[in-house]
Amino acid sequence: MLQPNASSPYWNPRIASLSPYTPGEQPRIANLIKLNTNELPYPPSPRVVAAIQQELGEPLRRYPDPEAKALREVLARRYRVDPSWVFVGNGSDEVLAFAFQGLLGHSGPVRFPEITYSFYPVYCGLYALPFETTPLDEDFTLDCAALRAAGRGGVVFPNPNAPTGIALPLAEVERIVAAHQGKAVVLVDEAYVDFGSESAVPLTHRYDNLLVVQTFSKSRALAGLRVGFAIGQPPLIEALTRIKDSFNSYPLDRLAQAGAIAALEDEAYFEQTRQAVIAERERLATALAAMGFVVLPSKANFLFARHPSIGGAALAQSLRARAILVRHFAKPERIAPFVRITVGAPEQNDALLAALRAIG
Amino acid sequence: MLQPNASSPYWNPRIASLSPYTPGEQPRIANLIKLNTNELPYPPSPRVVAAIQQELGEPLRRYPDPEAKALREVLARRYRVDPSWVFVGNGSDEVLAFAFQGLLGHSGPVRFPEITYSFYPVYCGLYALPFETTPLDEDFTLDCAALRAAGRGGVVFPNPNAPTGIALPLAEVERIVAAHQGKAVVLVDEAYVDFGSESAVPLTHRYDNLLVVQTFSKSRALAGLRVGFAIGQPPLIEALTRIKDSFNSYPLDRLAQAGAIAALEDEAYFEQTRQAVIAERERLATALAAMGFVVLPSKANFLFARHPSIGGAALAQSLRARAILVRHFAKPERIAPFVRITVGAPEQNDALLAALRAIG
Repeated sequence: MLQPNASSPYWNPRIASLSPYTPGEQPRIANLIKLNTNELPYPPSPRVVAAIQQELGEPLRRYPDPEAKALREVLARRYRVDPSWVFVGNGSDEVLAFAFQGLLGHSGPVRFPEITYSFYPVYCGLYALPFETTPLDEDFTLDCAALRAAGRGGVVFPNPNAPTGIALPLAEVERIVAAHQGKAVVLVDEAYVDFGSESAVPLTHRYDNLLVVQTFSKSRALAGLRVGFAIGQPPLIEALTRIKDSFNSYPLDRLAQAGAIAALEDEAYFEQTRQAVIAERERLATALAAMGFVVLPSKANFLFARHPSIGGAALAQSLRARAILVRHFAKPERIAPFVRITVGAPEQNDALLAALRAIG
Repeated sequence: MLQPNASSPYWNPRIASLSPYTPGEQPRIANLIKLNTNELPYPPSPRVVAAIQQELGEPLRRYPDPEAKALREVLARRYRVDPSWVFVGNGSDEVLAFAFQGLLGHSGPVRFPEITYSFYPVYCGLYALPFETTPLDEDFTLDCAALRAAGRGGVVFPNPNAPTGIALPLAEVERIVAAHQGKAVVLVDEAYVDFGSESAVPLTHRYDNLLVVQTFSKSRALAGLRVGFAIGQPPLIEALTRIKDSFNSYPLDRLAQAGAIAALEDEAYFEQTRQAVIAERERLATALAAMGFVVLPSKANFLFARHPSIGGAALAQSLRARAILVRHFAKPERIAPFVRITVGAPEQNDALLAALRAIG
């Protein structure tokens, strides 16, 4: 492959300046305890498998529904909106990309937290959008006043935030949205909302500038299937649809559409697995704190935690030597002492705790 | 939904000017003979189904390989290149979009045929790229001299062309690529190449400005799975990879990657089904000609044909009334008398011929 700063006379000049996002690694090593990419420790609902089976063979030769009507209808019922308020895409990353391209940063810099999902500045690079970041408070909560401050470029933040796991109360989210109404879009990225924080979806009825994005990759255990969605008033959804239809008519294949519908139809399984993760998160947080870790208060399916003496990079490396993967972010410096630990199944969490005790 | 020319104060101004692509319809009507979207009339290889079965359940909770290494390796072996020469995406539409964004139109207008895949001008709209079109010759072949003419914006054309089905000989393709070497990229869109035309892939070894795009949607019977790919020298592939990694780390889900690999591994099935389509295409072309149709010489899995007296729109409508879908393009005017007919299975083609006889 080319060097990071390589170029080619055939490239659009923008390409050379891109700094692509680096996803967490997906090694193919057996018996690895993989707590690095916030996947659910449980398989998807058995109904998902059954629904996908129905689409195998003959149906695969045909194009999927480009509008994903059936899936959008099920989502609309689940979230109590009209299907025209729902957009679906190839993972929430694609949905976020379309939102950046169509709704953010065109009339001023997009604003987002300094410590947050590291794909946001990458989208800005791809679409040549200006951006500015707002520092976190001392306790790693979002600076809500900074996110409320006037600006026409729009705001984006995850709730709960990543990689801290800290959630904002809905009233604070609403104040940020209200401060931008009539001026700019506020995009709330709710990838982890099902693990205990409050969704802003009900606010979409009152705010025409609110777009909420969610994913099937975490709480629905379908990271492998690539389905994300957005909910907002029809003009915002229409912008995403126009971009999608100018980019790729069918980003969601037949199996993804069928599987996502089935996942939504098994609410009991969803409830059971997400509650199991929440319970394990609390158990793991307590155990880590007892070992002297600083553990940020998480409403997500991961914990952001700092060992009392070992640095984040060193800790991640020691765990890796014991076949346990966690994620470490070297930048910004303020979070370098931390590691992000996905909440696993009970036996995985026990193995993690045992390894941490062995490391000391 | 909003009106076509609606806008919103929250939109990037570009959104209002987009003219999205309209895919062929995918109605859910039983017993319809669907000859409108160039799908293969046969299901995918049974190996595809078996491979996808292996990925259902537990594996679905995990993210796919963001680099799709296994799939790229199998493609590399099949097309006799190194894996670093292969890019894969969510259907060839996504691959084409990335190529437009990264490799075309940045130093001058992109050039493509006036009558061609109607997504090309849509991509130009999405990425604000200038373009110019070259008319077709009297007999609907591409104007090769015009495509060779100097320019720095690059060239894109399908081979065989759509919706005409007419293929250029490889020597003509090479002359177009050679004319642009050192100046701009030539993108050859080989969506239909497996039905009898010559692929430009072997030319990639000699030309650093050639990118060839293909799809699993037609000859591999996997339109429902959304897999496309590009082959070219590493700097061109690197541009696509940078864009993808700045947009969506995992556009190909686990099932799509597994299914595509299995399709490539069943060369015997591929050979058998594509030969069946080629044979049926020739039978159908002969039968239509005998009924007085003008039938353009097709190397694709469709025929572009003009009824001796009934206009294209009227013919498509009459067939629709008989539960047979074909595709009609109203513009440009020169092709309005034609309909594009996907080559179906023998019994579907027989039903089409019977319906045409009834229509008169």
